[in-house]
Amino acid sequence: MQDDELALIDRYWRAANYLSVGQIYLVDNPLLTEPLRPEHVKRRLLGHWGTTPGLNFLYAHLNRVIRARDASVVFICGPGHGGPAMVANTWLEGSYGQIYPKVGQTLEGMRRLFRQFSFPGGIPSHAAPETPGSIHEGGELGYSLAHAYGAVFDDPDLVAACVVGDGEAETGALAASWHSNKFLNPAVDGAVLPILHLNGYKIANPTVLGRMGREELEALFTGYGHEPIFVEGSEPAAMHVAMAAALDHAFDRIAEIQAAARKSGAGAAERPRWPMIVFRSPKGWTGPTEVDGKKVEGFWLAHQVPVAAVHDNPDHLAILEAWMRSYQPDDLFEPDGRLKLELADLAPKGARRMGANPAANGGLRRLDLARPGLDAFAIDVEAPGRTKGEATRALGRYLRALLDDNADDRNIRLFSPDELASNRLDAVFETTDRVWMADIEPYDVSLAREGRVMEVLSEHLCQGWLEGYLLTGRHGLFACYEAFIHIIDSMFNQHAKWLKVSRHLPWRAPIASLNYLLTSHVWQQDHNGFSHQDPGFVDHVASKKADVVRIYFPPDANTLLCVADHCFETYDRVNVIVAGKAPAPQWLSIEEARAHVAAKISAWPFASNVAEDGEPDLVMAAAGDVPTTEALAAVDFLRKALPELSIRFVNVIDLMALQRQEDHPHGLEASRFDALFTRDRPVIFAYHGYPRLVHQLCHGRTNHANFHVHGYHEEGTTTTPFDMTVLNGLDRFHLAIAAIERLPEKGGEAGARALHDLHERLEAHRTYVVANGVDMPEVTEWIWSS
Amino acid sequence: MQDDELALIDRYWRAANYLSVGQIYLVDNPLLTEPLRPEHVKRRLLGHWGTTPGLNFLYAHLNRVIRARDASVVFICGPGHGGPAMVANTWLEGSYGQIYPKVGQTLEGMRRLFRQFSFPGGIPSHAAPETPGSIHEGGELGYSLAHAYGAVFDDPDLVAACVVGDGEAETGALAASWHSNKFLNPAVDGAVLPILHLNGYKIANPTVLGRMGREELEALFTGYGHEPIFVEGSEPAAMHVAMAAALDHAFDRIAEIQAAARKSGAGAAERPRWPMIVFRSPKGWTGPTEVDGKKVEGFWLAHQVPVAAVHDNPDHLAILEAWMRSYQPDDLFEPDGRLKLELADLAPKGARRMGANPAANGGLRRLDLARPGLDAFAIDVEAPGRTKGEATRALGRYLRALLDDNADDRNIRLFSPDELASNRLDAVFETTDRVWMADIEPYDVSLAREGRVMEVLSEHLCQGWLEGYLLTGRHGLFACYEAFIHIIDSMFNQHAKWLKVSRHLPWRAPIASLNYLLTSHVWQQDHNGFSHQDPGFVDHVASKKADVVRIYFPPDANTLLCVADHCFETYDRVNVIVAGKAPAPQWLSIEEARAHVAAKISAWPFASNVAEDGEPDLVMAAAGDVPTTEALAAVDFLRKALPELSIRFVNVIDLMALQRQEDHPHGLEASRFDALFTRDRPVIFAYHGYPRLVHQLCHGRTNHANFHVHGYHEEGTTTTPFDMTVLNGLDRFHLAIAAIERLPEKGGEAGARALHDLHERLEAHRTYVVANGVDMPEVTEWIWSS
Repeated sequence: MQDDELALIDRYWRAANYLSVGQIYLVDNPLLTEPLRPEHVKRRLLGHWGTTPGLNFLYAHLNRVIRARDASVVFICGPGHGGPAMVANTWLEGSYGQIYPKVGQTLEGMRRLFRQFSFPGGIPSHAAPETPGSIHEGGELGYSLAHAYGAVFDDPDLVAACVVGDGEAETGALAASWHSNKFLNPAVDGAVLPILHLNGYKIANPTVLGRMGREELEALFTGYGHEPIFVEGSEPAAMHVAMAAALDHAFDRIAEIQAAARKSGAGAAERPRWPMIVFRSPKGWTGPTEVDGKKVEGFWLAHQVPVAAVHDNPDHLAILEAWMRSYQPDDLFEPDGRLKLELADLAPKGARRMGANPAANGGLRRLDLARPGLDAFAIDVEAPGRTKGEATRALGRYLRALLDDNADDRNIRLFSPDELASNRLDAVFETTDRVWMADIEPYDVSLAREGRVMEVLSEHLCQGWLEGYLLTGRHGLFACYEAFIHIIDSMFNQHAKWLKVSRHLPWRAPIASLNYLLTSHVWQQDHNGFSHQDPGFVDHVASKKADVVRIYFPPDANTLLCVADHCFETYDRVNVIVAGKAPAPQWLSIEEARAHVAAKISAWPFASNVAEDGEPDLVMAAAGDVPTTEALAAVDFLRKALPELSIRFVNVIDLMALQRQEDHPHGLEASRFDALFTRDRPVIFAYHGYPRLVHQLCHGRTNHANFHVHGYHEEGTTTTPFDMTVLNGLDRFHLAIAAIERLPEKGGEAGARALHDLHERLEAHRTYVVANGVDMPEVTEWIWSS
Repeated sequence: MQDDELALIDRYWRAANYLSVGQIYLVDNPLLTEPLRPEHVKRRLLGHWGTTPGLNFLYAHLNRVIRARDASVVFICGPGHGGPAMVANTWLEGSYGQIYPKVGQTLEGMRRLFRQFSFPGGIPSHAAPETPGSIHEGGELGYSLAHAYGAVFDDPDLVAACVVGDGEAETGALAASWHSNKFLNPAVDGAVLPILHLNGYKIANPTVLGRMGREELEALFTGYGHEPIFVEGSEPAAMHVAMAAALDHAFDRIAEIQAAARKSGAGAAERPRWPMIVFRSPKGWTGPTEVDGKKVEGFWLAHQVPVAAVHDNPDHLAILEAWMRSYQPDDLFEPDGRLKLELADLAPKGARRMGANPAANGGLRRLDLARPGLDAFAIDVEAPGRTKGEATRALGRYLRALLDDNADDRNIRLFSPDELASNRLDAVFETTDRVWMADIEPYDVSLAREGRVMEVLSEHLCQGWLEGYLLTGRHGLFACYEAFIHIIDSMFNQHAKWLKVSRHLPWRAPIASLNYLLTSHVWQQDHNGFSHQDPGFVDHVASKKADVVRIYFPPDANTLLCVADHCFETYDRVNVIVAGKAPAPQWLSIEEARAHVAAKISAWPFASNVAEDGEPDLVMAAAGDVPTTEALAAVDFLRKALPELSIRFVNVIDLMALQRQEDHPHGLEASRFDALFTRDRPVIFAYHGYPRLVHQLCHGRTNHANFHVHGYHEEGTTTTPFDMTVLNGLDRFHLAIAAIERLPEKGGEAGARALHDLHERLEAHRTYVVANGVDMPEVTEWIWSS
């Protein structure tokens, strides 16, 4: 490399630094054509300088590598508050102005660029959906590296340059992510180049990794399976040389690794020692060294706004002005705001610009999935409740076909924390394998160098990889134990927030929905007990904007097939499907299932003894597979015990349809809701999770006051599946009791007899289960007979 | 060590293995005095064998070390399904029978021991609150190592032997936990001995660490700051020798490290390379090698029940019987069920038994905190709304005194993800420091080898350390940004479940409550924007059992002091306090604050113009600091604009008091609730979080239908604090509009004028904020004047 090229890169870096400081501070006088006055400065200073110069440094050097090799690179900005850097650099390379023409490379554009940052009506202080080239929100920390791996799976030409902040590196999700390299195949996937940015400090503390010695760091990253390359220092000239050499070495190694693997073929590829860079540079590099006698550059006081009293303290204003002028804006920009030509030439062109790489606007590349149709996988249901089937097993067969039908496009993967087989989706292993880059023993099963299934015992990695995969235009499903999906509550939050914002950005093409299958659910944890029993993820999901989230409770295998098939065709959403894996009665044929899913909520004629437009004495409703079975068993009992009683059975498959139409696009229209649930009759509602959610969603519905919701009451333990429902009052006996108690005169004499009978059955159940450790045949062998 | 001692240990191990298999399989014939018949075997086989023999091996060897050194050791069982091992070993050492006399060392006791396991009415299949010696639930994986560190902070004589499963090691929380050694001072804290148990497999996959070569493992753990000691193999005799040597070496090193540090003094201690053990042994070690021609021992088929068709397949029954007899029960147990004397002698005695170590029943050691009184820290509030104060800053001063007053007992620490100063609790640094065992630079502030503040950018570590600290009998507070506390949703779940169960175990003494301070909350994220805005943690908390959780919204500094002070005296609970850090109007004197906290919900006379027992036209209610200010500003406006209107202002500080008394012990009695909120007048409720929670909690209250709750609607962005409330309709203008719209005839002409005025003010706000980037003086300088 020539010194003059590095000199140009240094100027480019200064330009980005200048624009970053400008964003944090200025509302006017963008090129400092006048002396800086307080009124040029924002009244609220909200931005983060500390990490920014390091990011700018990396961006400039990556630009050189991209041009030199015609590489396709996305920049993942892990440090939370790197917004100014991402915006500055995409502005410099022109990708920003292309999307936001009003903020183009003119003097007025630069003024707007500065003003909009962290300003009401403007843009956030992190990399965000609004930022060109970003697939990663820099708000909550920890997910950059998982996103980077997700981005490059099945994209052999892509390199994700992933800057990991040393604050972020302390988080659990990030700490787990280093092992992602065990799941990356150099023959068929792209490469991740992790760049650990040790600037030494968080908000108000040194960082753990920043204060580790080089020996321990070297050991650590060697242990993670990397070849660490160190770039350390604070002298720009030397650092330019070192970084250029480090990146050349890293990209050379990546090229060699990929060439070797692609020559030997994907099946024979071995896990290489991938390069990574440890980049140690001062926090707030090139900013004020000291302010008011306190160390700033190279210390945490540089984290946010290094010099703050600009409006009131002339010294501070002078520091700011000197700081900004130290970048020599005249040497960088034309008077009309354009970047000088020789600098502009340093940026890659077109789609090679990191702000314009199509992978970072994945919706542009998204292909709709070929979907295999459902009939071949449907369970034959001649009469309701007479056949047993395992819902997730049927889904597994569908997924196998889905993977087959899209095999050539290599654009769908399944993710699971070592639970795919346990969750009975193992039919997929008839057509594919789990990706595994370590040794494979002769007795191992369904492990291979290539595969469409990603299993690792980390919900964080499953979620992070899948997000990265979706955001770069692909499809996927995350299958998880219901209770443990709470581990990624916060990641779901951030993804849902990303979708809410990106849906309103016309230039962001829609991405495939994030699909969850929650199984091994609360009612099937006889096996594991209380710690594995928590149905609250859907409550968490329901807090997010209605246009982003959907929650489905398919009651049997065929409805699960219809729901899943539908979810794979949606976009820009989060779909949560809750479905069991245990053998259970099947209720609907595939045609009936289709109609039911389309209707979202419907009355089931076979289980109701009232005309569709009639008024029943009672509505028995259910959402969820186990609740459906229990509610139907209760109806079965009631119809025999109280033959005069008219009952409508209503099944809710799309939970959001309970909401009013004004609250959710899936909300059922009021007249239909009232026709189903009546305006004044008791509704006994058997619900899979915490009852409060049904109440919340039904808030404002005509008959809400008569809804009696049975669900999970945190009465979990290690016991039989049926006993779990009894402990929580969700079983058929308690449901029937609740129904009778709400009838006029409690159903009279017949009601009294029935109540007596029900209490005896509960007693008998308890005795039996404690004596035998299994459920009564009366319960396990019950079939619908009414 | 003598060979005969190892031979005895081998027999002890066999005894534990025998009891483990017995627990998984048998209901009768515990000592196999008869040939094994199907009816001796449980009908549902629910247990996990795979990890158990390794745990038994470790327990037996740790027993030897404890006896030899009179060491105080707790056993943290990371592998999820290690229940049989923990129960078997505590039964063998007698701590089990001491707590559960019916399950003592008799033949009947052994029969019960077997039968109760994973059986209705029995015990869970993990280590759990029911398990003597456990402070760690083996359900959700990932928290063992953080718990271990929490357990030994400030307990210099304790060693936490922490077995980390290689499945668990893939999780984010565990991966982050390795760096905990940077926060452990060998002079004043105890030691953690991590034992990574590589048995190679999870449920249905190899493990990432299990398939890493020795070189990478050695580098990795060296990089984490450890000296790894490898014990690898499958031949018991050789493994006994190796494990004994490894443990002796590890305990020697720990003793040397501690002696050196204690000699040099806490302040001079350096971070040593702590020993850790990598223990590689076959999954399902000593179990069936093959079943039906398939490899079982050393493979994931050993994970759960290695031979399952015992009832129907005589070959399987024979395998089980041969397996159990291979341990030679006659050589281990007396015919009456007692462990043979020479084996019983191998267990430590009394409180040295790991099942009886008082640290693992921390409530026994819990000292109540000395609490410093509040008057010295109270903010002077002469007239409501005239002074401004920062609530968390006042709390910081209280915490400083609390730390001082309990300094000698060394039993309280504060935990935070690098946010304590940002959250304005920095007064504590006047009396203590952050613990930091790496280099400390001359310009660093509030870092020291010793301190009572734990800061690391990992919510998982903060939570896990604090849990371990509480469970071993100490006190603490976790201060966190509100939005990011969702990162530990799942850990909160598990802790709340632990409390629910342990509260009903008479032998478990109550532990101090887990106290959260959620600050930098949703209404103060102007700075950070949408990604930092999520008030939903309290919704998640509210799903748990009422007797375990409390949620507080102190509206100002003095109420925050009263609430926090109260929380520190409670036990066996989770207390969530939500309070802001920004300068805000102060409402109550410390006396008034005390009365308000005691009342949980009360009307504020200064803000109401209706007699206490009168019926207002309107109730304005608020929960949360920002909502309180906005609601009071709305009242202020309404009282001027509509002087005839009678308003009661009600403030809710203890959110659970909204619930009916039958639903929560803190629930307000119905008559008081109705007196406050009326039976039929409109209630405009300004709430800090998602409105649904207020609706959920008020479900069933008389006047609930007239509650109009304003709160967060996921309309987050980067803007001014007041504009955030406007975007979500929680501001004074929207609240006043909502009130007027619910008055008869919308307040007539005066109402119409007021509405017009309010809409104009909203318009003016919007124009001002977009032009200036700050809020209107009308808003920021508003003071209560009515």
